Amino acid sequence: MTNPEAYRVEKDSMGDRQLPDTAYYGIQTLRAIENFPISGLKPLPTYVDACVLIKKATAIANGELDCITPEISQAIVQAADEVLNGKLRDQFVVDVYQAGAGTSHHMNVNEVLANRALELLGDVKGNYKRLNPNDHVNYGQSTNDVIPTAIRIGGLLALERSLYPALAGAIAALEAKGQEFQDVIRSGRTHLQDAVPVRLGDNFRAWAQILSEHLLRIETASKDLMVLGLGGSAAGTGLNTHPQYRFRVAEILSDLIDQPLRPAPNLMAAMQSMAPFVNVSSSLRNLAQDCVKISHDLRLLDSGPKTGFKEIQLPPVQPGSSIMPGKYNPVMAEMTSMVCFQVMGYDSAIALAAQAGQLELNVMMPLIAYNLIHSIEILGNTIAALAEKGIKGITANRDRCLAYAEGSLALVTALNTHIGYLNAAAVAKESLETGKSLREIVLERGLMNAATLAEVLNLEQMSQIPTL
Amino acid sequence: MTNPEAYRVEKDSMGDRQLPDTAYYGIQTLRAIENFPISGLKPLPTYVDACVLIKKATAIANGELDCITPEISQAIVQAADEVLNGKLRDQFVVDVYQAGAGTSHHMNVNEVLANRALELLGDVKGNYKRLNPNDHVNYGQSTNDVIPTAIRIGGLLALERSLYPALAGAIAALEAKGQEFQDVIRSGRTHLQDAVPVRLGDNFRAWAQILSEHLLRIETASKDLMVLGLGGSAAGTGLNTHPQYRFRVAEILSDLIDQPLRPAPNLMAAMQSMAPFVNVSSSLRNLAQDCVKISHDLRLLDSGPKTGFKEIQLPPVQPGSSIMPGKYNPVMAEMTSMVCFQVMGYDSAIALAAQAGQLELNVMMPLIAYNLIHSIEILGNTIAALAEKGIKGITANRDRCLAYAEGSLALVTALNTHIGYLNAAAVAKESLETGKSLREIVLERGLMNAATLAEVLNLEQMSQIPTL
Amino acid sequence: MTNPEAYRVEKDSMGDRQLPDTAYYGIQTLRAIENFPISGLKPLPTYVDACVLIKKATAIANGELDCITPEISQAIVQAADEVLNGKLRDQFVVDVYQAGAGTSHHMNVNEVLANRALELLGDVKGNYKRLNPNDHVNYGQSTNDVIPTAIRIGGLLALERSLYPALAGAIAALEAKGQEFQDVIRSGRTHLQDAVPVRLGDNFRAWAQILSEHLLRIETASKDLMVLGLGGSAAGTGLNTHPQYRFRVAEILSDLIDQPLRPAPNLMAAMQSMAPFVNVSSSLRNLAQDCVKISHDLRLLDSGPKTGFKEIQLPPVQPGSSIMPGKYNPVMAEMTSMVCFQVMGYDSAIALAAQAGQLELNVMMPLIAYNLIHSIEILGNTIAALAEKGIKGITANRDRCLAYAEGSLALVTALNTHIGYLNAAAVAKESLETGKSLREIVLERGLMNAATLAEVLNLEQMSQIPTL
Amino acid sequence: MTNPEAYRVEKDSMGDRQLPDTAYYGIQTLRAIENFPISGLKPLPTYVDACVLIKKATAIANGELDCITPEISQAIVQAADEVLNGKLRDQFVVDVYQAGAGTSHHMNVNEVLANRALELLGDVKGNYKRLNPNDHVNYGQSTNDVIPTAIRIGGLLALERSLYPALAGAIAALEAKGQEFQDVIRSGRTHLQDAVPVRLGDNFRAWAQILSEHLLRIETASKDLMVLGLGGSAAGTGLNTHPQYRFRVAEILSDLIDQPLRPAPNLMAAMQSMAPFVNVSSSLRNLAQDCVKISHDLRLLDSGPKTGFKEIQLPPVQPGSSIMPGKYNPVMAEMTSMVCFQVMGYDSAIALAAQAGQLELNVMMPLIAYNLIHSIEILGNTIAALAEKGIKGITANRDRCLAYAEGSLALVTALNTHIGYLNAAAVAKESLETGKSLREIVLERGLMNAATLAEVLNLEQMSQIPTL
Repeated sequence: MTNPEAYRVEKDSMGDRQLPDTAYYGIQTLRAIENFPISGLKPLPTYVDACVLIKKATAIANGELDCITPEISQAIVQAADEVLNGKLRDQFVVDVYQAGAGTSHHMNVNEVLANRALELLGDVKGNYKRLNPNDHVNYGQSTNDVIPTAIRIGGLLALERSLYPALAGAIAALEAKGQEFQDVIRSGRTHLQDAVPVRLGDNFRAWAQILSEHLLRIETASKDLMVLGLGGSAAGTGLNTHPQYRFRVAEILSDLIDQPLRPAPNLMAAMQSMAPFVNVSSSLRNLAQDCVKISHDLRLLDSGPKTGFKEIQLPPVQPGSSIMPGKYNPVMAEMTSMVCFQVMGYDSAIALAAQAGQLELNVMMPLIAYNLIHSIEILGNTIAALAEKGIKGITANRDRCLAYAEGSLALVTALNTHIGYLNAAAVAKESLETGKSLREIVLERGLMNAATLAEVLNLEQMSQIPTL
Repeated sequence: MTNPEAYRVEKDSMGDRQLPDTAYYGIQTLRAIENFPISGLKPLPTYVDACVLIKKATAIANGELDCITPEISQAIVQAADEVLNGKLRDQFVVDVYQAGAGTSHHMNVNEVLANRALELLGDVKGNYKRLNPNDHVNYGQSTNDVIPTAIRIGGLLALERSLYPALAGAIAALEAKGQEFQDVIRSGRTHLQDAVPVRLGDNFRAWAQILSEHLLRIETASKDLMVLGLGGSAAGTGLNTHPQYRFRVAEILSDLIDQPLRPAPNLMAAMQSMAPFVNVSSSLRNLAQDCVKISHDLRLLDSGPKTGFKEIQLPPVQPGSSIMPGKYNPVMAEMTSMVCFQVMGYDSAIALAAQAGQLELNVMMPLIAYNLIHSIEILGNTIAALAEKGIKGITANRDRCLAYAEGSLALVTALNTHIGYLNAAAVAKESLETGKSLREIVLERGLMNAATLAEVLNLEQMSQIPTL
Repeated sequence: MTNPEAYRVEKDSMGDRQLPDTAYYGIQTLRAIENFPISGLKPLPTYVDACVLIKKATAIANGELDCITPEISQAIVQAADEVLNGKLRDQFVVDVYQAGAGTSHHMNVNEVLANRALELLGDVKGNYKRLNPNDHVNYGQSTNDVIPTAIRIGGLLALERSLYPALAGAIAALEAKGQEFQDVIRSGRTHLQDAVPVRLGDNFRAWAQILSEHLLRIETASKDLMVLGLGGSAAGTGLNTHPQYRFRVAEILSDLIDQPLRPAPNLMAAMQSMAPFVNVSSSLRNLAQDCVKISHDLRLLDSGPKTGFKEIQLPPVQPGSSIMPGKYNPVMAEMTSMVCFQVMGYDSAIALAAQAGQLELNVMMPLIAYNLIHSIEILGNTIAALAEKGIKGITANRDRCLAYAEGSLALVTALNTHIGYLNAAAVAKESLETGKSLREIVLERGLMNAATLAEVLNLEQMSQIPTL
Repeated sequence: MTNPEAYRVEKDSMGDRQLPDTAYYGIQTLRAIENFPISGLKPLPTYVDACVLIKKATAIANGELDCITPEISQAIVQAADEVLNGKLRDQFVVDVYQAGAGTSHHMNVNEVLANRALELLGDVKGNYKRLNPNDHVNYGQSTNDVIPTAIRIGGLLALERSLYPALAGAIAALEAKGQEFQDVIRSGRTHLQDAVPVRLGDNFRAWAQILSEHLLRIETASKDLMVLGLGGSAAGTGLNTHPQYRFRVAEILSDLIDQPLRPAPNLMAAMQSMAPFVNVSSSLRNLAQDCVKISHDLRLLDSGPKTGFKEIQLPPVQPGSSIMPGKYNPVMAEMTSMVCFQVMGYDSAIALAAQAGQLELNVMMPLIAYNLIHSIEILGNTIAALAEKGIKGITANRDRCLAYAEGSLALVTALNTHIGYLNAAAVAKESLETGKSLREIVLERGLMNAATLAEVLNLEQMSQIPTL
């Protein structure tokens, strides 16, 4: 039982400090709280999970390798499990913007686990002689190999938990609409100008395909996250670690998160280069660009109801305007664009951080950790919401689609191989000027006979994509 | 008294919904909560302040102009004042990523104020027939003119509260160090290579000057924020507003925040263009670049203690490493760089949002609101923390500085006007190869006499910047 | 007379090299050509002008101050004038991507002027004992103060020659269209959904206003370029310069380019910080964002002819498609967006360069020089072309504009203050579902009488912006 | 024989224009020259190659499939081969910034090949009735499928010709240095502060590893470029193409460039999404970030000679300063950083362009084409130059490296597992304050015995990375 008004004293290499006895974090966390009153943003839960999973795995490995005692190993593992199960979550308190490399958050994790482990051993918080945040929880580890590994693990967790299922759901939703709208003929628009006819269903299938390819690219990029620098300790040389440690810890972590992790072939490279993170981040950014494009297309096709294209109807989910009654806006698509722009912004910041490494370390990692994991998660949530509340309820305005397709001046394109580009252009010009139909003009000019013309200007066929 | 288990029913143009009777927000907020489970990030307090200040000002103006009754006007004003004084802050609950243009957050504000105003009138929440979020709190307003105005007000508040005092403090701290270190001679380094001697104090004064100029640029950019589109209502034409309204509301807001606000000369331009925001955002970004540069310089000059320049010592604020005992890292400077990179990333996202406007509106405003105000605030907090814990405690390592200055090969530059560039280069080359001093070689070669040489190679004078 | 097959030998601090006797550039330029075979891009003419103007001004100043002889001063000035008049332009040959800080291009300028000046003195190229690129052309100067000054001068020249007249022309063209289309009533669109009526002329006036404000912001930013670090020499201390030099050279340069230049109050700050460049660059970027927005609006309003809005017609300037006959695309607007995106990209690179300064110098200046001046020039050329071939020939499709305005569901907004938001929403809903007009439904429901309704739903008045 | 003063008249859907008879380009190119006087930048040779290769392949395929006559097919192929062999290169004259989607450049290619093919048929330029740029050279093609394919082909060519060999060379050079410096012990620096010892050779090996991994990532990304949308024609439906065409043309192009190309599974997706380009571009950007980091490291380690680390010496390639004699700067590394920043800027612009697609097309492709191919090429040239003139000649300053390693306070880290973190920190602190060696203090404090201490503080072993 801790007395809420009681204090304990902790000591680090800078001196003594009082801590409330309720606090599981320790003196170094306290200093960091004071040093970094910046944003009020606390570490993302997924990032805490990642750090604690590493501490669990290292405690197991160091226990097995006789670097720490079984008792201490077990106590740390048990403390870690409690946090993984949702306890003590309010003890991770250092601002996102903090000491270079993330030492402050890292020590926060070490201290919370040490103090909880002490309690589990029947001891009191702060009795670091028995179980020490640095010497035991952090045995053989350094911020410099733990944090890059935590970003890897956190990224993988976020992808599995959030982005992958969201993308799969969105792709399925788009494919379903692709099938539903397969026979809806509409006019293509290139340069926002009349183009040749296409099928609305094919638009949805194209979007599904585009997202599928991004999913593959992200999965490919994520493989970089499975190669761990853990075991490099302070500078990538593995100082203070057992020779078997980096292999064993990768195996244990693999089991814990069910992913095929392995130690990096060059621990120094894994510590210095932020390439795995920028690689995943740019794969997100690139997905975001196409999501902006798709969202924008949805907004264009849904424009109206009276002054726009209104080829499709997005499901209304809330009143659209504080002043214009009866207005419904494509809010899910708009929100999607905003999140995508933010993901691109986070990626820019990650890229800036990545180029700022120096010699044995890149100290900009806390920024990268937050931006990467947060990007994955908000993008996942966004795509899931868009699919659920935006895409699934879309209906097609078949008549309007067909009317556009029939009216498009670009139908003359089908005549190219019969009457040549210049003649076809003249037909289009006359139609636009006089309002006469393309068919009428072609026949008047005697450029083709009626039967061939009918065959050539068949919208069903013109809009049919030949299968492979 | 509200019963925590009781529910009320509200109705909007989409239908009815139950709300917990404890909730001050209403049906549209409820829909937005459900529609946007994206990031968990809630509106920044400064942004809430800005929105509520606008509602207060419009209630006063609409009351004066007989558009709403005095009773309703007064109730809204009183509700607004309560929020401004810190009450009901947990009622602003819509995710940062939401409906385009910010309608969701805007309606959240309208609903909270309406419901609290109803209570103040002795009525019950939800009785919108008496006092309506749309018809009264939002009288003559639209998301389309309120939100751009809220970003302006929020930006101004954040600058005044956070960034301006922080910058002023940092400039003063740098100038104080400039004076303290005015007689510390060190070697300049250009391309990280030996250059001519400078004064350490002049480095600090240069940094102070650089920040001062950024402060001026930000103040200049912020003038854009003082020109309000409020009164444009839905599309910049002022539909549904009283002719005097936009003038009066600007005056009232000016009084409320003590800034010289005025209505925009072209309300449609003020609604469509995000230029005032990107202008302020880029002024922050540009400040951030020089802060990165200055932080990096601090880290370089503090590098060591045994393997680096160590011309200065940054005050240690926390142990630096989880594995390397006795290490102190320049954490305040590192944190500064990270925040600056984030500000640049937020600015990238703002720029993306700004180019995505369409016709009468830019619906990406919620993103801009968050990024701009958050950037100002984290940059302000960072600069304040850097000044306090980073700059003020810096000490100079005078001996080491002087040793570098005396050893620098670039001292030969002073000989150019006496012996020519090519001769001077030959002297430098011989010195580097043989280890002989520059002086020795010049005399050996008979290029100058000892007296002139001593005069020319006077480090005090070489490093002295002539005053204007 | 130079013999095209003859060679001369030049010597620098690294040794001897042969140069073709036709070459006005010298040994350091030769080394740079060999070292930097990167892009094939040569220095922009405006940047060469800027560098040569500086050399002219410094030669005059150093001559006046007796630092170089009148004969040498005069020869350098004459050589500079020849280059400014367009001669020897093929002698500036170092790749844009080169030695940090721009030493290579700077020496290229020094060498060309030295060799041409030697010829003007009746001497031969390469006889640097008489007139030396370093000791005479570069007297009292350093790459470190010349190049930042050259970017300033080059930026000012490019603004005056290209961007300012282009922007003024575009603003005038938009204003003329604003007047021409003042009585064209169209439907506003917010979120791409029906909104309240506006005037097409007001759209053009809003764009003119937006560009006017950007022009002012750019002019404000450009004032930073008028503050010169010239005179700081190698590290901002002014070593090797005459005390009067920096003042005198600023006066002379002011006269040469007819701008109010002045020496920087802190020469070290002026050398280290790239803020003036990022400030101008971001003002360009911000203009570019609104140009993208305006171009996009033009493309939307011109969409069609049969499948889009087609409220306006952009003048056709070339056939639009290699396959679709008779198609005209809004190519001037599309090109504008691309150039604007490139300007944003150049700005990103400038921002990266700006944060990478170290201690007494930022060596990334060659990149900044190219990107900044090129951005100004392509943006100027683009805006001029858009105005001339895109904007001036725009015609309005009045009937279609009016039809949209009359059909817009958002007309109910005008009823808010008469029947309340919720009633108005119900009217809009019924109209959309049944196709009945808003007027009909209001009367049927007995919400307003016919006379008031007619008055309220007057499109002329609804779309009229009240004058200030 | 063409008469240089003669003119011919060409006609397109807009009317007639005179062309100099020497011009191989035609009327549409002429209009584009007049419409786009923007940058003076002409299409990159590699991009011209790509377009002409496509035209060759389509002429072969269309000939085989009886869509055009064998005579015409052959004439086009022959004309294409001439261009591929370097002829008529001055005929590709449209500014980089041009009509959306690249129609102008595309028609330039069609016209040049048509006119040259006409000559090869013994006919005269401009006789398009016989052989037409649209109807024959462009048979079954559209800008909308040709240009995305040209960017793919151009990207692949540039990678093979420039970036891949450059990267391979740089990796080999770094590995060679890795071996050469394997026994050079130096102090690691993390946060630019003393860290544990490492081997200089391992730094070079880490860099080699980092570049190797980027090479793999770029190769993976480039696989996207091998999937062609060619055959989609105007809107991805394949209108006007022979059913076998897209398969056949992919085979032919595969042979021509010796890469395993194949038609896209979804032609509409391949036309709309710029994902393959942003994917490659971001892989370049990410490489660029690590190149900046490595260049920066080289500059740090080479800093000095008297005022910096000077652990290594980069080979001097040119005098470094116009004012400071005898100075050598790390110019190859500096140039590398600048090019890398530019590549990041180009990537930003590509990303902006990619998000701006609309419906069936992204018209921002000309920007993407230029930026992507140019980025690949300047990055390739830069890395090759850096390897050749920067890396290969690096020498190590072994004594200085060892002295730093021996002096580093972080040696105490090795004591952690023997005396605990806090004791080790106290030792480090005393050493820094008193100047006593770490060994001395440990023994004085009786924390370890001399034998164990000697074993633990063995720099050889501490810096040795255990092999896998």
